[in-house]
Amino acid sequence: MIANLLADLPDASAGEVFTELLERPGIRIERIVSRGQSTPEDEPMVQDWDEWVLLLEGAAGIRIEDSAVVALAPGDHLLIEKGQKHWVAWTAKDRATVWLAVHLG
Amino acid sequence: MIANLLADLPDASAGEVFTELLERPGIRIERIVSRGQSTPEDEPMVQDWDEWVLLLEGAAGIRIEDSAVVALAPGDHLLIEKGQKHWVAWTAKDRATVWLAVHLG
Repeated sequence: MIANLLADLPDASAGEVFTELLERPGIRIERIVSRGQSTPEDEPMVQDWDEWVLLLEGAAGIRIEDSAVVALAPGDHLLIEKGQKHWVAWTAKDRATVWLAVHLG
Repeated sequence: MIANLLADLPDASAGEVFTELLERPGIRIERIVSRGQSTPEDEPMVQDWDEWVLLLEGAAGIRIEDSAVVALAPGDHLLIEKGQKHWVAWTAKDRATVWLAVHLG
């Protein structure tokens, strides 16, 4: 079965849309579609597992712990380690931003 | 550390280029860059683990077991199950084709 991650994107204006693509013991692959959302400064995301993230489309800024905000373009990928506070500082407001997230463990 | 999967692509004219992005027990994420390669008809690929594949850029045709060749465009993804014979029937000759492969187990 072939499916496409970038076609017929859901409208994420009212909230990010999470779509699970694959789940196995110790691994979960999901697509996240954002449109203008950001993480509140006083509510950083923190996870109890490592997460590998790849930006597929759109644009976003991400901040990890005390580092500066880094702008992400399609193809950019990074590992967010277990326990690291992180914020999506911004996502493009005028179009969808599509992330692939691989949750490890 | 931010890296980009689509920038400064290696020249794969002389052979596919495999780049490991992440390895953990039970999971390995790699980028594969192809340019015109295909799998010989009499040498199908078969793996002892499931593989989730996402086409990021370029174009390719894939065949699994006895099914017809299916053309893949950016964003297309599929699961190749353990033990399934599969062939990359073709990849674009005029530009790079970039795959993300997640090997499970």
